[in-house]
Amino acid sequence: MKSSENNPALLPAGFFDLLPGEATAEARGLRSIMDVLAAYGYERVRPPLLEFEESLLSAGGAALSEQAFRIMDPTSHRMMALRPDMTTQIARMSQVRLGERARPLRLSYSGECVVIGSQGRDSARQMLQAGLELIGPDSPAADAEVVAVSVAALERVGIDLSEVSFDISMPTLVWRILEVCPPERRPALAEALERRDSAAIAKHGGADSALLVGLAEASGPANHALAALTKLDVPSGLRADVERLVASARAIMARVPGLSLTIDPIECRGWRYHTGLCMAVYSRRSHEELGLGGRYMAGQEPACGLTLRPQALLRAARPQEKAPRCLVPDTLDDGALHTLHGQGYVTIAPHAPWPATQEGVKALAARHRCKNAWMEGKAVQAV
Amino acid sequence: MKSSENNPALLPAGFFDLLPGEATAEARGLRSIMDVLAAYGYERVRPPLLEFEESLLSAGGAALSEQAFRIMDPTSHRMMALRPDMTTQIARMSQVRLGERARPLRLSYSGECVVIGSQGRDSARQMLQAGLELIGPDSPAADAEVVAVSVAALERVGIDLSEVSFDISMPTLVWRILEVCPPERRPALAEALERRDSAAIAKHGGADSALLVGLAEASGPANHALAALTKLDVPSGLRADVERLVASARAIMARVPGLSLTIDPIECRGWRYHTGLCMAVYSRRSHEELGLGGRYMAGQEPACGLTLRPQALLRAARPQEKAPRCLVPDTLDDGALHTLHGQGYVTIAPHAPWPATQEGVKALAARHRCKNAWMEGKAVQAV
Repeated sequence: MKSSENNPALLPAGFFDLLPGEATAEARGLRSIMDVLAAYGYERVRPPLLEFEESLLSAGGAALSEQAFRIMDPTSHRMMALRPDMTTQIARMSQVRLGERARPLRLSYSGECVVIGSQGRDSARQMLQAGLELIGPDSPAADAEVVAVSVAALERVGIDLSEVSFDISMPTLVWRILEVCPPERRPALAEALERRDSAAIAKHGGADSALLVGLAEASGPANHALAALTKLDVPSGLRADVERLVASARAIMARVPGLSLTIDPIECRGWRYHTGLCMAVYSRRSHEELGLGGRYMAGQEPACGLTLRPQALLRAARPQEKAPRCLVPDTLDDGALHTLHGQGYVTIAPHAPWPATQEGVKALAARHRCKNAWMEGKAVQAV
Repeated sequence: MKSSENNPALLPAGFFDLLPGEATAEARGLRSIMDVLAAYGYERVRPPLLEFEESLLSAGGAALSEQAFRIMDPTSHRMMALRPDMTTQIARMSQVRLGERARPLRLSYSGECVVIGSQGRDSARQMLQAGLELIGPDSPAADAEVVAVSVAALERVGIDLSEVSFDISMPTLVWRILEVCPPERRPALAEALERRDSAAIAKHGGADSALLVGLAEASGPANHALAALTKLDVPSGLRADVERLVASARAIMARVPGLSLTIDPIECRGWRYHTGLCMAVYSRRSHEELGLGGRYMAGQEPACGLTLRPQALLRAARPQEKAPRCLVPDTLDDGALHTLHGQGYVTIAPHAPWPATQEGVKALAARHRCKNAWMEGKAVQAV
């Protein structure tokens, strides 16, 4: 291993070791998320890391195709892919394995995903995902449930809700408008929408200019946006989308009254297999998305899900207390150890002779990062 | 997804979906294991799923080389490998990332591993591992700690200790004898040892015949084996190994008095990068190994670890109780939901109109697999 020690490229770019402390915090955060999802009836499933390419990357997964590493299966001589995302796997399971279950079907999952190129600014290529999928109902109440349960999970992880905002959008609106836009104007219009440049949108928007500028200017905090959206003159082909965006926003506001909710009707970047309302979770404490989700089709069934990124959540959360460490003699019996564990201590046997003096014990405790040590039959503060 | 529905080869051989219930049980078992390891001071680390081939499969990892899927990294143009095992990753981290920490260094980990070909009779190619590594001390007390902590983890998972046995061995003994055995006799001797055929061992053992037959006959429950081993006339080159096997067995018996411990001095299958005492965990309830471990070198440092297989553990464990499900109106406020969660209920909103009659509520509860339903302001048994 000596050669690795001076090698900055020890691990491939985008792949990381989590050290003690980091890995514990991640596991604890993940546990909190999954506990909340379970309490709301989201039953845990666990699809495999690899699937056949044609299964993993078909239907909704096709949008992720260029992000997936391929591996040839020597057993079947068919191409497999390492999952870049889990939502398409959950959709498959909901149809193929759980098609007979009563709806709504609520599923939760957590696991590692791997992508070829980096997507976020932290450039990770391996990402832990934890998410929920509500399959069956297609209603503002269902959208609101996904948000409310996600909010409960954020709170359990130790995120201050006053620092979080949920950003909802309806990417199908812009997609439908771009679809009917003459091809020669399309790139300029898409760019204008992305830059939220009202003048450029008006210039390239053609017949839809007024609507598009109106949608762009309806962005912002939910109360402002709702007032603006309900005043817009929306053509019939787009009315259902706008009405659903308004209805879902209202359902979310009613269900999670304290939530900072923003509406961005022309947002459509980052969404791929989605078919309706989309959501992104942000924190004032970090520039990365804490979670992403929205409506899609699980086979023929409407579904709404949200994927949280535990690593990003933890960077936005209050640090949690660590369990206190207590130095114990190597020979301490397991009964005494279990008692200490029951009291919340982590026990550390030094595999060294037990010092004869209290000062010696304290020095050994310090060397093993223990603030406590076993003295006179119990744990005593030593440092 | 329709085409997959009738396709028996939906997933590559050896890769499985865990459905609701199965995935929950696995997650709960894994949590119990990791909690116990943490209480004994084993700090969690999390290496990545993929590493450069030359890092992952060097040193101890070389023994696993033919089991690892390779993936070309388009970023670095270097070959990566999907980990077939985590112990070599933990060894790397202990040397490269945690070299400055006080010893003993105690690390724990859990994660998915993937192998090209199946190893066990359940033919899984993706396996969840959870393990502990005690790095630094090379003593019978350290071996006994690894066993004692593993035993505590098994108990926490719900395994009846009277149904479990730990099988310890010293594969270096046979490896050293085979090394000096004339090449023409070696295959026959190895086969005789594997079949534990005393007559064939005597025939092919050459000058070591008496010793080898003595070692083979010293297999069995620890008390019998220790008596037989201490009577054996062991040549000086092998004496240290036999003495350590005896000393470690005695340390384990002293630390975990109720444990069913067996000693198999000529066992050497399945061990690859190990350099001393090895351990395997079996249950009377299943034919698969629940865990495997032993001594190896982490770089230049002695280490002892044990890897548990949560899936196998759960098949050998008592089934655990599921949280009760309670049907609740879609409109029930989050305060009431949190109260129910605090009482241990999983809440299930039907996304359907709430029935007007108690009979209607009970029928809806049954349809959603809820034994309880919200009636008159609280959870009431409904089925």
